[in-house]
Amino acid sequence: MIKAAILGYGTVGSGVYNVLNSNTRLVNERAGREIEVKYVLDLRDFPGDPVEKQLTHEFDDIINDDEVKIVVEVMGGLHPAFEFTKRCLEEGKNVCTSNKELVAEHGLELMSVARENDVNYFFEASCGGGIPIIRALNDCLTADDIDQITGILNGTTNFILTEMAENPGVSFGKTLKQAQKKGFAERDPGADIDAYDPARKIAILSSIVFGSSVDYKDVYTEGIRGITSEDIRYAATLGYAIKLLAEAKRTEEGIRVYVAPFLVDPAHPLYSVNGVMNAVYVHGNMLGDAVFTGAGAGSLPTASAVVADVIDAARHDGKRAYCGWKHDEKLVLASNDGIRRKNLVRIYTEDEGKANKVFSPDGFLDTISLGELEDEIAFITPELSEEEFDNKVRAFGKVISRIRFY
Amino acid sequence: MIKAAILGYGTVGSGVYNVLNSNTRLVNERAGREIEVKYVLDLRDFPGDPVEKQLTHEFDDIINDDEVKIVVEVMGGLHPAFEFTKRCLEEGKNVCTSNKELVAEHGLELMSVARENDVNYFFEASCGGGIPIIRALNDCLTADDIDQITGILNGTTNFILTEMAENPGVSFGKTLKQAQKKGFAERDPGADIDAYDPARKIAILSSIVFGSSVDYKDVYTEGIRGITSEDIRYAATLGYAIKLLAEAKRTEEGIRVYVAPFLVDPAHPLYSVNGVMNAVYVHGNMLGDAVFTGAGAGSLPTASAVVADVIDAARHDGKRAYCGWKHDEKLVLASNDGIRRKNLVRIYTEDEGKANKVFSPDGFLDTISLGELEDEIAFITPELSEEEFDNKVRAFGKVISRIRFY
Repeated sequence: MIKAAILGYGTVGSGVYNVLNSNTRLVNERAGREIEVKYVLDLRDFPGDPVEKQLTHEFDDIINDDEVKIVVEVMGGLHPAFEFTKRCLEEGKNVCTSNKELVAEHGLELMSVARENDVNYFFEASCGGGIPIIRALNDCLTADDIDQITGILNGTTNFILTEMAENPGVSFGKTLKQAQKKGFAERDPGADIDAYDPARKIAILSSIVFGSSVDYKDVYTEGIRGITSEDIRYAATLGYAIKLLAEAKRTEEGIRVYVAPFLVDPAHPLYSVNGVMNAVYVHGNMLGDAVFTGAGAGSLPTASAVVADVIDAARHDGKRAYCGWKHDEKLVLASNDGIRRKNLVRIYTEDEGKANKVFSPDGFLDTISLGELEDEIAFITPELSEEEFDNKVRAFGKVISRIRFY
Repeated sequence: MIKAAILGYGTVGSGVYNVLNSNTRLVNERAGREIEVKYVLDLRDFPGDPVEKQLTHEFDDIINDDEVKIVVEVMGGLHPAFEFTKRCLEEGKNVCTSNKELVAEHGLELMSVARENDVNYFFEASCGGGIPIIRALNDCLTADDIDQITGILNGTTNFILTEMAENPGVSFGKTLKQAQKKGFAERDPGADIDAYDPARKIAILSSIVFGSSVDYKDVYTEGIRGITSEDIRYAATLGYAIKLLAEAKRTEEGIRVYVAPFLVDPAHPLYSVNGVMNAVYVHGNMLGDAVFTGAGAGSLPTASAVVADVIDAARHDGKRAYCGWKHDEKLVLASNDGIRRKNLVRIYTEDEGKANKVFSPDGFLDTISLGELEDEIAFITPELSEEEFDNKVRAFGKVISRIRFY
């Protein structure tokens, strides 16, 4: 028997409680021992809910109870989640979390506290929801030197982009509102649509893959706020999909990490990942290509990942589990300037002559026009570095929009 | 430091040797200790190959060496692989294998020997090549009650079906020859094209998922030998792909396991898995849908999975790792007769009247005809059980071909 506490009885916390109560026999069998939830911490009361038996308003009940060996932190936010987690680890309690903000911001420090106290800090649910990507990296693809990881790591934006592609002409704003109505987007959607959320996740994943801490604030981050229904129609005309990709890649120039919307080819495995699904592509030097797909969010899929951590914590009670993210130094990322890519650029028809001069090596760009949009055309640039592209735009003047080809 | 031996220096064995020598630092770091290959067993000599230092022709060198704690069995075939594996386990050595024939035939007995001797018998590479599906089931998706697993588990047949779809009109025989030339099919291709290979793999996977031993001989198995270029053209006309699917599913009637070619809808995640890639769809009661995709065969991807087992064996030295396949009784499978599916049926044009009478509830079947095939038509049946379908065919007479809709 091992006792656990859950900090926070919100969407994920109640999911964790639900999974532990629904799959009890299987969970205990796989953990190799009985797991009992002794406390659930929340400021609120839940009259009539079975959680009442375990509910406490006092963190001290948990921190002072030596029987509690596993703490599930699913409060979200940085404070007091950080202080609570740190104190639990210091008291020799394992902590399992879905809190990507906290892991991205203080993961390194918390892992070092865990190491000093011979306990584990697990965060499977912080990236890719129910997809077991962190355990895949730490425990499954262990024979490989992973040199690239590319993911669709945010369900909200993938839902919006999929909806826009399936309903041509419907605007970004309208689609966002619909996502909010369906509960797929927050009332304050900034972390998703401005891509801070996938930036945190790719920072966590690349810290595991490359061993040293990637600071999410160093990750070049471009969201989908600027994607219009016209962009989506151009993409469809070309047979491509627009996807918000988060990528970390080892190159000759160093490790590059970025998040941005890209035009993705139908032959690419991430092309067909639609709606709220997430997917992570991994390349290993022996394995080659592998892709992990699953629900990126939602109470139960996220709770499924958290409970897998709880089971692993029970299996490893008293022992440290392996984690690839283990070096204390911060990883200095390579600049993205040198990446050469084609771009889809939209301009006003009247500027075609100037565009030919500036963007085409031989002065003749193949242009694409959508019947309905008479005053504009689009074209595909040759492969250009970010710097070259910026210089050309400077020479050209303002373009309507630009999307990189993946 | 932990010492290992490799039984067999063929395609997979040399791959394992290669992975251990190429990724040495990473492998040791993740194993938590140095892994040294002390012996490689093979009947042949390899003059000039670095393996000469470790090469032995005598199994006794390995079995009698107490330093050897991990044995990699990559000889293939049942004998002497079975006897060697059993003796190693009895001597307290962990065994890691890619030998699906052996695991499917004697896995239960070997796991029980492993259990009695407090060592591990790992077989990640036996299913799905480099895809870490067994570890995903045993160690990652542990919070879930898995009720379905559906895979494209054979790269050879998936390559043939993909080639036939991409080159309309090219026959099965010609495509098979091409696969053989490219090294994607064996000279004796029976195990692949008659689907014994994926039947073994789904038997192994379903034993892990459902806990008790599934005998691959009980799995309804239908290969792709009968698939013609005409079938592929009908599928393409409907917008579907023909895929050889291996499925295990818990239903109200019990657990059903079968392998057969199916018409797969473009919206299904396995539709776009092409060429030699494998993929496994898993459904969990909390997680929902998850898909794992990767290289299903090949020296290095398979070796990557074997070496992940070696690392896990080193991590678990002296301890037993969890495996879902743990009950000694054999699982009695439910009959497939009750599954209701639509079917694509091809008949000679002259039999249309009879088909309307036999196959259509209201006497009017929508027929599909391909311009080039004047003397035949095809139609889609209503949902029928296997038994109902067989009865109808008996009443109708001979059909040209029949493929189930997934």
